[in-house]
Amino acid sequence: MTALVDRDVLFPAEPAMRGLARALYGAVAHMPIVSPHGHTDPRWYALNEPFPDPAQLLIVPDHYIFRMLFSQGVPLEALGVPRRDGAPVETDGRAIWRLFARHYRLFRGTPTRLWMDYVLGTLFGVAAPLSPETADAAYDTVAERLAEPEFRPRALFERFNIEVIATTEGALDDLRWHRMIRESGWTGRVVTAYRPDAVVDPDFEGFAGNLDRLGELTGCDTGLWQGYLDAHRARRAFFRSFGATSSDHGHPTAATENLAGDEAAALFDRVRTGRADAGERARFRAQMLTEMAKMSLDDGLVLQIHPGSWRNHSPAMLARFGRDKGFDIPTRTDYVAALKPLLDAVGLEPTLGVILFTLDESSYARELAPLAGVYPALKLGPAWWFHDSAEGMRRFREMTTETAGFYNTVGFNDDTRAFPSIPARHDIARRVDCAFLARLVAEHRLREDEAHELAHELAYTLAKEAYRL
Amino acid sequence: MTALVDRDVLFPAEPAMRGLARALYGAVAHMPIVSPHGHTDPRWYALNEPFPDPAQLLIVPDHYIFRMLFSQGVPLEALGVPRRDGAPVETDGRAIWRLFARHYRLFRGTPTRLWMDYVLGTLFGVAAPLSPETADAAYDTVAERLAEPEFRPRALFERFNIEVIATTEGALDDLRWHRMIRESGWTGRVVTAYRPDAVVDPDFEGFAGNLDRLGELTGCDTGLWQGYLDAHRARRAFFRSFGATSSDHGHPTAATENLAGDEAAALFDRVRTGRADAGERARFRAQMLTEMAKMSLDDGLVLQIHPGSWRNHSPAMLARFGRDKGFDIPTRTDYVAALKPLLDAVGLEPTLGVILFTLDESSYARELAPLAGVYPALKLGPAWWFHDSAEGMRRFREMTTETAGFYNTVGFNDDTRAFPSIPARHDIARRVDCAFLARLVAEHRLREDEAHELAHELAYTLAKEAYRL
Amino acid sequence: MTALVDRDVLFPAEPAMRGLARALYGAVAHMPIVSPHGHTDPRWYALNEPFPDPAQLLIVPDHYIFRMLFSQGVPLEALGVPRRDGAPVETDGRAIWRLFARHYRLFRGTPTRLWMDYVLGTLFGVAAPLSPETADAAYDTVAERLAEPEFRPRALFERFNIEVIATTEGALDDLRWHRMIRESGWTGRVVTAYRPDAVVDPDFEGFAGNLDRLGELTGCDTGLWQGYLDAHRARRAFFRSFGATSSDHGHPTAATENLAGDEAAALFDRVRTGRADAGERARFRAQMLTEMAKMSLDDGLVLQIHPGSWRNHSPAMLARFGRDKGFDIPTRTDYVAALKPLLDAVGLEPTLGVILFTLDESSYARELAPLAGVYPALKLGPAWWFHDSAEGMRRFREMTTETAGFYNTVGFNDDTRAFPSIPARHDIARRVDCAFLARLVAEHRLREDEAHELAHELAYTLAKEAYRL
Repeated sequence: MTALVDRDVLFPAEPAMRGLARALYGAVAHMPIVSPHGHTDPRWYALNEPFPDPAQLLIVPDHYIFRMLFSQGVPLEALGVPRRDGAPVETDGRAIWRLFARHYRLFRGTPTRLWMDYVLGTLFGVAAPLSPETADAAYDTVAERLAEPEFRPRALFERFNIEVIATTEGALDDLRWHRMIRESGWTGRVVTAYRPDAVVDPDFEGFAGNLDRLGELTGCDTGLWQGYLDAHRARRAFFRSFGATSSDHGHPTAATENLAGDEAAALFDRVRTGRADAGERARFRAQMLTEMAKMSLDDGLVLQIHPGSWRNHSPAMLARFGRDKGFDIPTRTDYVAALKPLLDAVGLEPTLGVILFTLDESSYARELAPLAGVYPALKLGPAWWFHDSAEGMRRFREMTTETAGFYNTVGFNDDTRAFPSIPARHDIARRVDCAFLARLVAEHRLREDEAHELAHELAYTLAKEAYRL
Repeated sequence: MTALVDRDVLFPAEPAMRGLARALYGAVAHMPIVSPHGHTDPRWYALNEPFPDPAQLLIVPDHYIFRMLFSQGVPLEALGVPRRDGAPVETDGRAIWRLFARHYRLFRGTPTRLWMDYVLGTLFGVAAPLSPETADAAYDTVAERLAEPEFRPRALFERFNIEVIATTEGALDDLRWHRMIRESGWTGRVVTAYRPDAVVDPDFEGFAGNLDRLGELTGCDTGLWQGYLDAHRARRAFFRSFGATSSDHGHPTAATENLAGDEAAALFDRVRTGRADAGERARFRAQMLTEMAKMSLDDGLVLQIHPGSWRNHSPAMLARFGRDKGFDIPTRTDYVAALKPLLDAVGLEPTLGVILFTLDESSYARELAPLAGVYPALKLGPAWWFHDSAEGMRRFREMTTETAGFYNTVGFNDDTRAFPSIPARHDIARRVDCAFLARLVAEHRLREDEAHELAHELAYTLAKEAYRL
Repeated sequence: MTALVDRDVLFPAEPAMRGLARALYGAVAHMPIVSPHGHTDPRWYALNEPFPDPAQLLIVPDHYIFRMLFSQGVPLEALGVPRRDGAPVETDGRAIWRLFARHYRLFRGTPTRLWMDYVLGTLFGVAAPLSPETADAAYDTVAERLAEPEFRPRALFERFNIEVIATTEGALDDLRWHRMIRESGWTGRVVTAYRPDAVVDPDFEGFAGNLDRLGELTGCDTGLWQGYLDAHRARRAFFRSFGATSSDHGHPTAATENLAGDEAAALFDRVRTGRADAGERARFRAQMLTEMAKMSLDDGLVLQIHPGSWRNHSPAMLARFGRDKGFDIPTRTDYVAALKPLLDAVGLEPTLGVILFTLDESSYARELAPLAGVYPALKLGPAWWFHDSAEGMRRFREMTTETAGFYNTVGFNDDTRAFPSIPARHDIARRVDCAFLARLVAEHRLREDEAHELAHELAYTLAKEAYRL
């Protein structure tokens, strides 16, 4: 495709399979991008201002990048990551870029390497592999491009052939950027998603105040259980009015509860008044997943559960740099017992959509595929986070397909705030899926016409349908 | 092989490996079938009546099929699955068949798809891929064949080249069908297996009454621990007189105990009189695995442990449709601590045969292969249930062979009640094993003459030896 | 390479990938061996006496071999494994060798088979595959070679092109053989490693006496916490004076603690005086990992953690034959919670080196790669023990590279006491890594020049750097 990314990248080496993979991919390579879950900033689309310098765009906010460099002894300060205490950090984009280029070898064999080569080669037209020697020229090229109108957010959105993209906003967000996008008359489809962690998780910073604010925004009495639930309903409706078709929930575990009304109300009271212990706080989060699922039955929002990350594993790094600095570590995650209360309540509802994610691949074949392969409400989200990679996506298909099939999966999520890399991420997912399908065809487990149909569905249709976009 | 199943199905795409796999497979493709563990109905072989209509034979009883359709919103009633309350369900075989055909795409990439194509193409001579358009013609073809004498159970048994098949009967079964088979003079070898869950598991429906019945059948006093054990000995002898060479145990976990005699007797007393709590009931099941192993040392029955399924995960579905309706979900399963009491008691006995199964693939390389690779009493059962699939069997070999070798495994189990699919299942296992062996040969990790020997052993010899058939 | 081992062994079958793998391997095949962690006997290098007969060298001490034979009913006595009660066991090397040859088929598909064919074919020049028929001739050939001066330890060391090898000695060892090596003037580089289990683990046989002895050796008061720590410091310095660059810790779990000074002192007091319960003894082991890490910060020893083996699973076998008889079984192992106290204390230190191993492959992608991919102090040891195999090493790369990269791994450990097999083990690791790199190149995920650089680093550089050799 470019000097940096071969046109056969990620296809199997065996010639017959490669030929099949090429043919399958060829027919879906240019399909529009449906991005049903991610973290791009709606402000970009609203204001349509130029992106900042190459380092601020491509390095500083990317946790995959700074965690790897940090693991090899590079201080985050040198990469321009802001400190909470306001102490100085590197601000010279070129210096940050050079430091990155000097360590670019660390990314060999990682998705970051693929994404970056795609972005540099395909989007910015850089031809030379990134290295200390070529760092300055690459920086200059990227910086020049970013100054051009064709590289502003809306132009890129269109060039990327994005049919629809979902951002993620907290329950208290006023969605002003979404409103501005809508009022601007621009036709790009940007929708929000409802992420209520700040008003659902009693351990969230400022939880009590957040509930007060939720009450103000909705006119509901969030001091009472029913008022609190009504406030969620109101915010969900508000989010739906800005295109939301899904909610998203990032809990430490997949635990759910389905307490009787008065029990739930009493639990809420303890949580609301700050008297709940750790077990009660966990139970409240668990209860709220089921409450959200019940609301989804009414309003049609698809419920996404992203469990199993031990957030901010290093307290020293949290204190120095804040959240989301690469110190979120996956843990063993149970689904079979954890989801039972929710499933007992609403799992048999065919109109409900609950999408399960995991960071614990040992659950794919053992728990997730068997659950999604029988409960009508459940579907499997794609390989997530550390597993959003060539090997990770391959393992996902190999370990889920035989029990859950393809049609209990939901296509690809890019799940990213790295806007320039979105085409790369979707392209990689399409290639890995086509490589998997090519193997099934080559081994006569699937006919070629079926593989073509599936390639189209995995690249496009399933995401639209599962997320109701 | 047929229009629906390619002669190279499941062989690696790479030509050299494919050639090796073909050669290995060619020499074992027509070996007799040894089916040491399964759930076909002995009544079929006893009465030798025609099988019912295509849907009643191939769709309605198949939990792989109805769970997948249910996961996509198809009610079980529409598939003819009987309700416990007697409410009407679909009884028109053709209507059920059409519904299945309309959703056949759901099975792409699953073992069900392979099995069904095999059965339709190879057994019934259907040539067109199943689809809404071809559903009626396929139905008619199958229905016509089923009416022919060549498609009665005994004729199929012989056509399938089954050397021996084991059914599974509860401890209280009178084995009347097995008696009828024996008295019929038919030479097909059908043996039973001893499945005592109903008289071993205090949580089994009607446990106390079952123990009374066990006493009546054996003349032993099942009110006392020693009488109860004697009753097991008597039933095991009775089952052995109908060819049984194995017992089978489907516990929630692999937990075993080895209590002192008086402790065990006291525990039995609590269980027998309904005073045991959940922990005691679990401990009793655990104790009984060790008791069964000790009896195996005396009478030679091979002990099969099938742990780790959370049965009837949905209480609503259990209430509506009963057991075995696709809602059995695998759970994380420990073996190293769980089996220790049994292994401390009898694990070093080289004449004992204990065959371990798992639904938790993460235990293959970590626990099961290291255990079976040292304890003389232990062997590994094949990839089970959701893992009885091309990818599942491949992972089994890749994750167990290097530590346990091939010779601590026991060949293939079809483990099915889907009689027409038995040749398909064995054929798939043979192909997957030959594909694995072909890779070892191609990578010079095994000589070709050894691979041929192994292909024969994996397809035939190991099952006969491990199950003493 | 020889009649027993093909020159393309372990390379992918697909011709393009095989060509790449050959080229990558060709450039590193003859690199010197760096063996940073293992269990060869320093006495061999010190005395340079001939090795004993073939069976005593190649069979009797090899737990991979006798566990497999035992699993198939061969008594350890027949293999010459000494009994603790002094009862007679087989001592005739030829009889043991014949017994092994008769069962050699059990090892098909295992690493033992590969290692043995390498040793017989490449080192001893045996041409015929081992079988009952060829056993005597092979035995004679090996026995003849072993009598030659070219097969004495130092000559083999040089022939094997070992640049440096680490042995492992207990904290109380006087390192007399290392001293003898040093004083001999021989230039072979043999270093020790500090293994303090006997004075760190309260459950170790003779713990209290070991601490007394530790006090005598160091002149420190090991009755007190500070004196005990000083004694460790003194022994570490002593070990460093014999080349040690690492310590090694074989705990049942990866648990760490970081107690305040007085808490730790109080815990030590309970442990020292034999009053600690099981939880306290575990906590003491956990605390000592963190203490060792803190000492490593001062003295630069690399800390290796080898957790997760349930040692001596069979008490009967322990009583009859002692430790290390193949009954060590892996267990599920947590790292994310377990290591947190140590990581909170010193995990961000870029000058610290902590190398993590696992027997629980499910932790590779879920826990270990994400941890090593961000904490500067952490690196991943290679696939260990049962996973030191072709499939095991492949899985290690596939499941760690995308998150931790190659540069948070440390090259290969042979971890063996089987001296003649060391070249085989390193060769296999190089081949498996080159096969993995070849796939990345063939799938255009890595450039060929990068793969060459990596092949060199994985085979040689990373081990030297990570172990500071």
